[in-house]
Amino acid sequence: MIYIHTPSDNALWLDLFGKALPDAVITAHPHAVDDTAVTTLITWRAPEGLFARFPNLQHVFALGAGIDRFLDRPDLPAHVNLYRLTDAGMAQQMIEYVLFGVLRFQRNMDGYLRQQQQALWQGLPQRAAAEMRISVLGMGELGTQVAQALGRLGYPVTGWSRSAKVVENVPCVHGLPALDELLRQTDVLVCLLPATPQTRQLLNEARLTLLPAGAAIINAGRGDLIDLDALLALLDSGQLQGAQLDVFPAEPLPTGHRAWTHPALFITPHVAANTLIGPSVAQIAARIKALQRGETVDGLVDRARAY
Amino acid sequence: MIYIHTPSDNALWLDLFGKALPDAVITAHPHAVDDTAVTTLITWRAPEGLFARFPNLQHVFALGAGIDRFLDRPDLPAHVNLYRLTDAGMAQQMIEYVLFGVLRFQRNMDGYLRQQQQALWQGLPQRAAAEMRISVLGMGELGTQVAQALGRLGYPVTGWSRSAKVVENVPCVHGLPALDELLRQTDVLVCLLPATPQTRQLLNEARLTLLPAGAAIINAGRGDLIDLDALLALLDSGQLQGAQLDVFPAEPLPTGHRAWTHPALFITPHVAANTLIGPSVAQIAARIKALQRGETVDGLVDRARAY
Ligand SMILES: NC(=O)c1ccc[n+]([C@@H]2O[C@H](COP(=O)([O-])OP(=O)(O)OC[C@H]3O[C@@H](n4cnc5c(N)ncnc54)[C@H](OP(=O)(O)O)[C@@H]3O)[C@@H](O)[C@H]2O)c1
Ligand SMILES: NC(=O)c1ccc[n+]([C@@H]2O[C@H](COP(=O)([O-])OP(=O)(O)OC[C@H]3O[C@@H](n4cnc5c(N)ncnc54)[C@H](OP(=O)(O)O)[C@@H]3O)[C@@H](O)[C@H]2O)c1
Repeated sequence: MIYIHTPSDNALWLDLFGKALPDAVITAHPHAVDDTAVTTLITWRAPEGLFARFPNLQHVFALGAGIDRFLDRPDLPAHVNLYRLTDAGMAQQMIEYVLFGVLRFQRNMDGYLRQQQQALWQGLPQRAAAEMRISVLGMGELGTQVAQALGRLGYPVTGWSRSAKVVENVPCVHGLPALDELLRQTDVLVCLLPATPQTRQLLNEARLTLLPAGAAIINAGRGDLIDLDALLALLDSGQLQGAQLDVFPAEPLPTGHRAWTHPALFITPHVAANTLIGPSVAQIAARIKALQRGETVDGLVDRARAY
Repeated sequence: MIYIHTPSDNALWLDLFGKALPDAVITAHPHAVDDTAVTTLITWRAPEGLFARFPNLQHVFALGAGIDRFLDRPDLPAHVNLYRLTDAGMAQQMIEYVLFGVLRFQRNMDGYLRQQQQALWQGLPQRAAAEMRISVLGMGELGTQVAQALGRLGYPVTGWSRSAKVVENVPCVHGLPALDELLRQTDVLVCLLPATPQTRQLLNEARLTLLPAGAAIINAGRGDLIDLDALLALLDSGQLQGAQLDVFPAEPLPTGHRAWTHPALFITPHVAANTLIGPSVAQIAARIKALQRGETVDGLVDRARAY
């Protein structure tokens, strides 16, 4: 039996999964369920205790790509297979989000917005795409497509990941020892890493300081990848040009937080790449069917790597 | 003899043209020139009377793509060949400028900016690229490359031009009779037309009203393509989502003009695609050499068409 718990539109998800898996018994009813019959759980922002409720749970499908919040949960037993969404329409959105940020920095669009507020008609310095060295940290499902799209538009892009990688048209480096040198040659730093014990606070003050003067940051991975206070200090001093941040150490970003009003920050509320219902249902339903046929499927989270 | 008059960096232009055309006699000196010896003029924003000064003028090379200001000039004789820049690094910049605008409208980025000012953390409606019907008016050097780049990023794009066109991956329509129907099916209208007697005020109130509710406009062609008052009224009423305007009926946009403070307008000071010195010198020098060899060259303006 499949149990569905989603943060919103629960009835719609239930309906679409019902159509995609016509032979399955699926429920989204919080009670009136034989908990021992549930072997598969489809969820996001699972309430406290949800995992423990089903003693025969085998598979959990996360309705997102970043599963750090699942791994934080003591009630998710180690033997349960956890699957995450892979792309499922998120890469296209992430390309758009990152591209907007890159263009905004490159073409000085926030400068023109400020000038507009003063009715000031004046050209500002602008760089050619070929002069904007972009580094993409995290060359997974999303980072790879983002890096390739930026490369196709004429930006010199370098990818960085844990393991060695060969990506068409995108030179890649990997591992911690390669990071510092990469940061020194980065005009726009794009963070698309997962939050793991190894990546949390990766971009600390020491590393952020390696970025050249005038560099910019786009973070759409996870908020705890970056030391936000150190970033704000580098923006205050004018060392960095700006940052476009979609993710924060605590979300929602608290109302009184000084990041909200920082002139060099553009803040979006974790919307860079939303879970799309249609493609997500299709991907998860296909995986459930494949598992039923005894096949292995993509998206299984490696608990040891934590992503 | 070649005479150079540019709005800025005259010495740099002179130096680069000297290097690109080592056998030519080139001057940028306002006096101390035998005016009768000048057969070729390279210029932009030519001062009043400049054309009339050289009785043996044969070729004028404009340091830009839009030559409406040259055709307005009574002192430019009809027999003189006028050449404009074709691309010369402008298409890449135009792709960036238009893409920024499209992403801004699609992803509701100005809405997020407003929310940031209120410390408001809240997702906004966003459309998929595949749902954003983009129409590019003017499928010339710039429009064609812009349309193709948008198409490659997943937007459904239609091109519109005077004559019939076949462009890879971009369906095209042409001529005035096709325009109204196109406008009715346009979510983002991208104007990359030249200013000619046929295109001035093309987007008048009646045509702008054909755009679906919530549509947006990007104009980087010429300011007189659009009835600015009609556009402002449609933005006031909320019928249109917004506009990103790089060009205006009078430039600079006058300080007191209400467009400056309109919340649905993003204004840039005619910087969508700047003339790049390097590629422009290379293109014009190659054309001058080709003309010396008796060859025909690209970029010759058709005075009857006015572009
Ligand atoms: N803001 C949003 O709306 C949004 C939406 C979706 C996802 N996200 C975030 O984006 C992240 C990436 O998503 P994805 O689907 O691309 O994930 P993914 O396919 O798992 O890719 C993760 C990438 O990060 C690299 N990586 C992990 N740990 C590393 C380390 N210690 N050092 C260097 N590189 C490391 C991986 O390296 P290897 O290739 O060597 O394994 C891989 O390239 C998600 O985890 C999530 O946090 C945000
Ligand atoms: N804002 C900036 O920074 C900036 C920079 C550069 C250029 N521009 C503007 O952009 C314009 C376009 O540049 P370009 O190099 O692409 O010019 P182009 O190669 O001459 O292309 C002009 C396009 O407009 C079409 N067109 C002309 N008159 C038309 C009419 N009456 N009805 C329908 N279509 C018509 C032409 O149709 P056909 O293909 O059928 O001839 C052609 O497709 C320039 O004229 C200039 O005003 C602005």
